[in-house]
Amino acid sequence: MWLPVGGLLATLAVVVGTAVAFAPSPRITWEHREVQLMQFHQPGIFNYSALLLSEDKDTLYVGAREAVFALNALNISQKQHEAYWRASEDKKAKCAEKGKSKQTECLNYIRVLQPLSATALYVCGTNAFQPTCDHLDLTSFQFLGRNEDGKGRCPFDPAQSYTSVMVDGELYSGTSYNFLGSEPIISRNSSHSPLRTEYAIPWLNEPSFVFSDVIRESTDGAEGEDDRVYFFFTEVSVEYEFIFKLMIPRVARVCKGDLGGLRTLQKKWTSFLKARLICSRPESNLIFNVLQDIFVLRSPDLKEPVFYGVFTPQLNNMGLSAVCAYNLSTAEAVFSRGKYMQSATVEQSHTKWVSYNGAVPTPRPGACINREARAANFSSSLNLPDKTLQFVKDHPLMDDSVTPIDNRPKLVISDVNYTQIVVDRTQALDGAVYDVMFIGTDRGALHKAVSLKSGVHIIEETQLFPDLKPVQTLLLSSKKGRRFVYAGSSSGVVQAPLAFCGELHTCVDCVLARDPYCAWSPATAACVALPETDSPRRDLVQEMSGDTSVCPASSPLPLPSPGSSSLSCLGPDSSSSPRSPWPAVGSGPDSHPRVTLLPPFLSDQAQHVHALGTFHLFCQATGPADIRFVWEKNGRELEMCVPVQTHALPNGRTHVLSWLRDAISESADYRCSALSSAGNSTSGVRISVLRPEATHQKWTRELTAWRAVAGEHDRMMQSWRKAWESCNQDNF
Amino acid sequence: MWLPVGGLLATLAVVVGTAVAFAPSPRITWEHREVQLMQFHQPGIFNYSALLLSEDKDTLYVGAREAVFALNALNISQKQHEAYWRASEDKKAKCAEKGKSKQTECLNYIRVLQPLSATALYVCGTNAFQPTCDHLDLTSFQFLGRNEDGKGRCPFDPAQSYTSVMVDGELYSGTSYNFLGSEPIISRNSSHSPLRTEYAIPWLNEPSFVFSDVIRESTDGAEGEDDRVYFFFTEVSVEYEFIFKLMIPRVARVCKGDLGGLRTLQKKWTSFLKARLICSRPESNLIFNVLQDIFVLRSPDLKEPVFYGVFTPQLNNMGLSAVCAYNLSTAEAVFSRGKYMQSATVEQSHTKWVSYNGAVPTPRPGACINREARAANFSSSLNLPDKTLQFVKDHPLMDDSVTPIDNRPKLVISDVNYTQIVVDRTQALDGAVYDVMFIGTDRGALHKAVSLKSGVHIIEETQLFPDLKPVQTLLLSSKKGRRFVYAGSSSGVVQAPLAFCGELHTCVDCVLARDPYCAWSPATAACVALPETDSPRRDLVQEMSGDTSVCPASSPLPLPSPGSSSLSCLGPDSSSSPRSPWPAVGSGPDSHPRVTLLPPFLSDQAQHVHALGTFHLFCQATGPADIRFVWEKNGRELEMCVPVQTHALPNGRTHVLSWLRDAISESADYRCSALSSAGNSTSGVRISVLRPEATHQKWTRELTAWRAVAGEHDRMMQSWRKAWESCNQDNF
Repeated sequence: MWLPVGGLLATLAVVVGTAVAFAPSPRITWEHREVQLMQFHQPGIFNYSALLLSEDKDTLYVGAREAVFALNALNISQKQHEAYWRASEDKKAKCAEKGKSKQTECLNYIRVLQPLSATALYVCGTNAFQPTCDHLDLTSFQFLGRNEDGKGRCPFDPAQSYTSVMVDGELYSGTSYNFLGSEPIISRNSSHSPLRTEYAIPWLNEPSFVFSDVIRESTDGAEGEDDRVYFFFTEVSVEYEFIFKLMIPRVARVCKGDLGGLRTLQKKWTSFLKARLICSRPESNLIFNVLQDIFVLRSPDLKEPVFYGVFTPQLNNMGLSAVCAYNLSTAEAVFSRGKYMQSATVEQSHTKWVSYNGAVPTPRPGACINREARAANFSSSLNLPDKTLQFVKDHPLMDDSVTPIDNRPKLVISDVNYTQIVVDRTQALDGAVYDVMFIGTDRGALHKAVSLKSGVHIIEETQLFPDLKPVQTLLLSSKKGRRFVYAGSSSGVVQAPLAFCGELHTCVDCVLARDPYCAWSPATAACVALPETDSPRRDLVQEMSGDTSVCPASSPLPLPSPGSSSLSCLGPDSSSSPRSPWPAVGSGPDSHPRVTLLPPFLSDQAQHVHALGTFHLFCQATGPADIRFVWEKNGRELEMCVPVQTHALPNGRTHVLSWLRDAISESADYRCSALSSAGNSTSGVRISVLRPEATHQKWTRELTAWRAVAGEHDRMMQSWRKAWESCNQDNF
Repeated sequence: MWLPVGGLLATLAVVVGTAVAFAPSPRITWEHREVQLMQFHQPGIFNYSALLLSEDKDTLYVGAREAVFALNALNISQKQHEAYWRASEDKKAKCAEKGKSKQTECLNYIRVLQPLSATALYVCGTNAFQPTCDHLDLTSFQFLGRNEDGKGRCPFDPAQSYTSVMVDGELYSGTSYNFLGSEPIISRNSSHSPLRTEYAIPWLNEPSFVFSDVIRESTDGAEGEDDRVYFFFTEVSVEYEFIFKLMIPRVARVCKGDLGGLRTLQKKWTSFLKARLICSRPESNLIFNVLQDIFVLRSPDLKEPVFYGVFTPQLNNMGLSAVCAYNLSTAEAVFSRGKYMQSATVEQSHTKWVSYNGAVPTPRPGACINREARAANFSSSLNLPDKTLQFVKDHPLMDDSVTPIDNRPKLVISDVNYTQIVVDRTQALDGAVYDVMFIGTDRGALHKAVSLKSGVHIIEETQLFPDLKPVQTLLLSSKKGRRFVYAGSSSGVVQAPLAFCGELHTCVDCVLARDPYCAWSPATAACVALPETDSPRRDLVQEMSGDTSVCPASSPLPLPSPGSSSLSCLGPDSSSSPRSPWPAVGSGPDSHPRVTLLPPFLSDQAQHVHALGTFHLFCQATGPADIRFVWEKNGRELEMCVPVQTHALPNGRTHVLSWLRDAISESADYRCSALSSAGNSTSGVRISVLRPEATHQKWTRELTAWRAVAGEHDRMMQSWRKAWESCNQDNF
């Protein structure tokens, strides 16, 4: 009998092995309790999803379910005011009759919280599936009971997406227009010219609204352009097709001066155009086609706003996220000079969207009324020719895509779903300017990442919400000297400083953090927040490359423990014991009391670490009173300070324990030797730096494992220390 | 200043959180050195990619780079014959002139190794980019020097995909036809009727060939159907479109009796039809569109062959793999009754493939000549009307897809790339029949998985190739009583038994393995391979549900250690110490020698484990000579045997160490108490079973971490044991 097997997978390496290149991970993780975070939560109130900051008043307004709060922006645990807006029993009953849950859906979720004037906020809520808007008087902190119909400004269903932005007193919003949530709409709520989108698949196809903002006319005003309102959303693609419905992230924009058409597109946008946002890494087959959030970074030293977006993949999403950034001008170019798409009918029942190659009417369809248009007597969208209007009605989708800066994601990360982003632009000690991203996750954490030349470095992860609830809103304050990140979730609001410099206790840690907000102060032996002024920075140490050689040779240690135990520093500064010459190796097994290394030996502590990631090694031994340790790295005695703990044992013997904390960029060999008059004992280990590019898969798996081991080591160290301290009077 | 933030991600849970539902992982991992594997590797020879088994002769033929070997199939480390076939220097030089690497590409990679007769093999090799075929005489084990042109049977480029199958003396192959590898072809090498595919995108579009096999006419022959040859490959989709080229897995088939057309499709297949293979989990947005391998499972108790396929995703592949199985009849139905697709031209330059809804000519295009066709006087494809031939030429792609059994993958797994699969159908002790999958990975491992009612359980992972080279070929022998899995990689061939029952040392382990090949023999206290005959199974214990209550109350332990130390079993059988009533809790801190638990305490050993995954807990203490342990689980004293190791210390004190191995399906509390005349000391811990559905993300991360900790524990245990043994004479 013959059993043949063909099929060499020679193309295997090409076909598989296309997994993501190495994804970074946070260098430090702060548990919720480890760092000082201000929190706000009102018992019985949930869904703190709308945040609005008044920097003038140092007040953070929070829209939650059936309530609005005013909090002290410098310490949000201090509530200043509260106003409740509960759906009436009548409305709740009607809502429940329509099959919605009275306990969850038929309540009033505050969705719109926008500034109306210095003394009032504009507030809309779902109000038991009957969206309603009202004014909140900030003096009395009471609702005025306007009871405006919120349809088109606020969704009916709290589970549906929405976005809104107040521009010059008029509310622009993206939401759904009906009870079922099946009619999406982007509209302007305006007394003199309310406008909306066509209800048609080419305009909006099951969109999830993410963000909107106004982009002001450039100050030089050369083109005599209008202010534009940008909308960001993910919708079902019309131009692509696969086994499932494919989603596609979009940027759309309308012109503020749009007044709709006279006949065609009457009371509809004449300036609604949309384009694809590309966030992908083609060489790895990574496609991030679900937009989660957008932040508009504006800075005096940036010549144009930059859109920072967080994305996740729709397909095969095992917890991948990406950040892509877009220049405003890239999007503007697509809208003002790009090709349009058009739909073509294929064999009766099918449609295919293809590039439109025919003549484009003048004025250009979807363009804002600019100087040129006005010169041609098109002073308003109401004057636009029917040809232009009909074209934009049929061709709202651009053929060109908006590509990210450098044509690739700033950051791709695995094992995490990003939900929200804010970005700060800050100057480090070296004078260079860095974009620092604060990114919320679906498990209540905040990542802080900085763009370095070598790629994005994730400085730290902070667990904002211990209940692991997704970060639903992020807000960055901009007031100098008192800057915070505010985060809202279903369970509460958290206020975090931009950096936790004070938690980094050594110069090495402070430098390795590569946090542009932090620098080491040798004078005070502390990691301190960089002053935002330029003055007193002279004596600070910061090195964004993470090169710790800038650190002073030795740093102070924690306090020594009391009693018969001692804690000292082994290193070039410690003169308590003779350090050289190297004593003769080994001693007879019969010599008493001999030197014995205790487990876990250094050789048990082999680790794969990542470049410049910290790790711990420890070494313990018993022996005569003169026992001491020597640490070697790559055959050379270590120059740095290594803590040593000594416990006198009753029979004249001594227990010594030493632990090393280090970070390396190349694999290194370590040896720990216990030296004494009674002999020596040595154990060694090689710590390998994993080359992420080469061994990405192994890496991502092992990283977590070894991290845990390292954590375990830390914990065991604590236990052992306690145990040795408690045991040494009766165990020996 | 106002900083508004809209954008509640109310739809967050819908948009993210679509990650894969919990993926299983192997219950046991065998390192290469832990299990007995036979290996073959000839120094200097690489790429052992073609395997062919002669069960009659108990010989495994291996095609490698420039060599063919005959190995003893019962022990492949025994080489029987070898024949070398090196590319000539002349050919190598010409190949190098064309820009290929003389060291790697310009060699002779054996790609086709097929049985020709009882005394000869048909062998083709790339032969320095000049594919050539030859006959290998099995008597002399020498090549006959036929020097046949191998074009169309064997690729030019060793990096290119290929597949071939010998059917009734004629070779059917899928490969590329030219030097550049740009012309794909599925052909029959036949003296009387060589046939091939059209060179046209709708027929084959950059395919990666994976597998081919013959499906014989059903024995009842009701339809008078022909034998069919099935081809499996992945190609670039014509019917779908996204930001990148989309790949799509296909099954194609041709009829053995096909003779080509008379004018249209002359010397081309008239029976070539192809269809999509679907392997996806739409509710999780998982799409597996790259086919890696196919195995055809045939069994007397199966009414039709089943195609088992392993797939990986093209997009966002972070190490996801799936197994989908297809009934032959599902594929046949698509080919014989399904709709066709047709291409339509859109706006000059674009094409869209849509469902063809027009009239279909008779005889049905692409159908094999069957009784009905013959009755209508179409006795051969040469008689087929031009209409039928032109239709099949233009419509080789079916509109209907081949869907998997149960409409979903049998198995979805993360963090691994599957490359190859073979499947065995075996009867367990309970009489039920199980499909056992042996699946190779791209890192040299083999997974063994069994389909249970509760889903697929991955029994074990075996590291076949310690160099982590991808498994390129898998072959399963079928001879009763001497069954093996053979695996080929670039570095060698490995032979593994179907199960490692003997490595499972306790009844609990043996039962928890849920391996249908293994059962516990209480008589010999060993886990044994289930005899393939029905006879002596009476006294064996096997429980495919993993219910260990079938195990006898206590199992033997490893040998006790010598000297003053002892190793015993704590449990209902041990009568050495009083076990109840529970002694009074606690003792004064001043009592000497008091009982002291040593770290790591039970409370340090908190773990998240997976249901029925084994874990270890350990507990150590010092105290007076009568010290002993009591273990509790959920408040009840443990009935099972727990090993205890005792070391007498010089001063009359004792060190005891006990370790528990357990597996749980629900979270459980454990307590370990050291009891003695001098008092007691207790530590407790809760071991949590992670609910994978709910916390998949956390799980996949933590799994690895905790695994490592568990491994670390094991290793530390060993170190400590040694240390305590060596220390107790001079440390106390």
